[in-house]
Amino acid sequence: MVEMKKKIIITGAAGFTGNSACQYFADKGYDVIGISRSDLAEVKVRVVTCDLLDKEKVSEIFDFYKPDFCLHLAGVNSVPRSWNDPSSTIEANVLGTVYLLEAIRKAVPSCRTVIVSSALSGIDHPYGVSKKHQEQLVADWANLFDLQLMIAKPCNLIGPGRSPGFVSFLANRIIQLESSGDHSPINISHLQNEREFLDVRDAIAAYEVLLKAGNRNVTYEIGSGKMTTLLEILDIFQTLTKEKLTIIETNDTKDLSPRVMNSELIKDYNWQTVYPLELSIKQILSYHRSVGS
Amino acid sequence: MVEMKKKIIITGAAGFTGNSACQYFADKGYDVIGISRSDLAEVKVRVVTCDLLDKEKVSEIFDFYKPDFCLHLAGVNSVPRSWNDPSSTIEANVLGTVYLLEAIRKAVPSCRTVIVSSALSGIDHPYGVSKKHQEQLVADWANLFDLQLMIAKPCNLIGPGRSPGFVSFLANRIIQLESSGDHSPINISHLQNEREFLDVRDAIAAYEVLLKAGNRNVTYEIGSGKMTTLLEILDIFQTLTKEKLTIIETNDTKDLSPRVMNSELIKDYNWQTVYPLELSIKQILSYHRSVGS
Repeated sequence: MVEMKKKIIITGAAGFTGNSACQYFADKGYDVIGISRSDLAEVKVRVVTCDLLDKEKVSEIFDFYKPDFCLHLAGVNSVPRSWNDPSSTIEANVLGTVYLLEAIRKAVPSCRTVIVSSALSGIDHPYGVSKKHQEQLVADWANLFDLQLMIAKPCNLIGPGRSPGFVSFLANRIIQLESSGDHSPINISHLQNEREFLDVRDAIAAYEVLLKAGNRNVTYEIGSGKMTTLLEILDIFQTLTKEKLTIIETNDTKDLSPRVMNSELIKDYNWQTVYPLELSIKQILSYHRSVGS
Repeated sequence: MVEMKKKIIITGAAGFTGNSACQYFADKGYDVIGISRSDLAEVKVRVVTCDLLDKEKVSEIFDFYKPDFCLHLAGVNSVPRSWNDPSSTIEANVLGTVYLLEAIRKAVPSCRTVIVSSALSGIDHPYGVSKKHQEQLVADWANLFDLQLMIAKPCNLIGPGRSPGFVSFLANRIIQLESSGDHSPINISHLQNEREFLDVRDAIAAYEVLLKAGNRNVTYEIGSGKMTTLLEILDIFQTLTKEKLTIIETNDTKDLSPRVMNSELIKDYNWQTVYPLELSIKQILSYHRSVGS
């Protein structure tokens, strides 16, 4: 008996999470098709170059592959960029999602799809507005057309790979410091601000759980359940390098901490974190040492 | 002393309400600039041909004219079309509105703008979804960028002019009947369904009130306060023609009647209806007699 591989389309395949997700699902035996706007994806899977705003091409891709699953990661994720150009953020996150949902509806309405939103959804900036509308449109499309759509809201994701986040930034500074001997201080603000960090591979494992068994039109928050200050992150990095890290705190006001994610719904599926923070940070540093800063 | 005319941009200028609005504001001494996707506008004012999805051109228009007011009527208003092509409905009503708001924000953030939504906003069809998101984005943009945006939600608008609605349809049938003598029955469903009708000129007078004095980020419902069955409309038409109207009711189930609009907020500005239903219908019939069916 031939066992057919399950097909999964992953949008935003060249991004930080997308890269890891392509790897993860390929390793798990899925037939992975990545979609990326750029052809810069490092991933080792088939990648179709397509801007999600090219609605005809998006439809053709779903019509051709008829995937069992879709993980929708593509979008504009920068708050500053969203202030500079609100239209393009709405286009990418709202209209791009509509085109994706329409492609699924027309080509393969049974496709089980996880749309990845953000803890910043609903915050008062154009990015937060775009994610709020994205989530609402997903709920609308699930209702109108009876599609198998789930929403995942992860906390801050970290891990090996090219990430625009704070932890990868620090890792890069440390290997620069190690190679150059430049001991100029690192400027960081808000050292006491707490954030909830989760390894991207843990998040992707949660997405897989939802793709297989999540309930239609439910929003699942995904977090580690643990708040960590930037200072604690720095302390972990300090244990991993012989160089002495010198920090200048440029702003010591304490932001209102975001609340911790409520991960009860995903934990009902026996999902749990596998990568403790110390291990993630160790592997992040190894990754950046291996690729160079 | 030279008195400068106030400038108003009216989008959807070639539509039923747009046509009347261009006429109304021109008669009131405004400097009217219509925007229309097609160049088919009957209106006697300056009309710039522009699809609101052409965001650069929309921005250029606002940058050039720097209007004091904007009345946003453009959009896709057909529920059946929204089922056939949900994407284009979202594009026109959601993205088109974002581009308009962005043009206003960048070129003339003081521009007092009325966005016309619909009593069907929020209903479970892609059109209702698009209008719900349009309203929410208007509120979001008003909040994020402190813009002078008001939302108007009118009931069913009727009046002289090319309207796709039921009342104009009937007027057309009657003048066909008068000219051809064809007495074949008219098929109509749901004769007992109640609807709230308002003359389009009364609605536009309300929009003017809001443009001048409405409160930022408030939604104003605009209606006649009176529910009317299609049978009552037919009875009025029967008094206006010598021909005997023969009706076949194709479906006599009674829909859940929509609630009457709550016009209290707009009445606080001493707005009131000027055109009773009988007068509107008489003038609708005169209009269609004058232009032919």
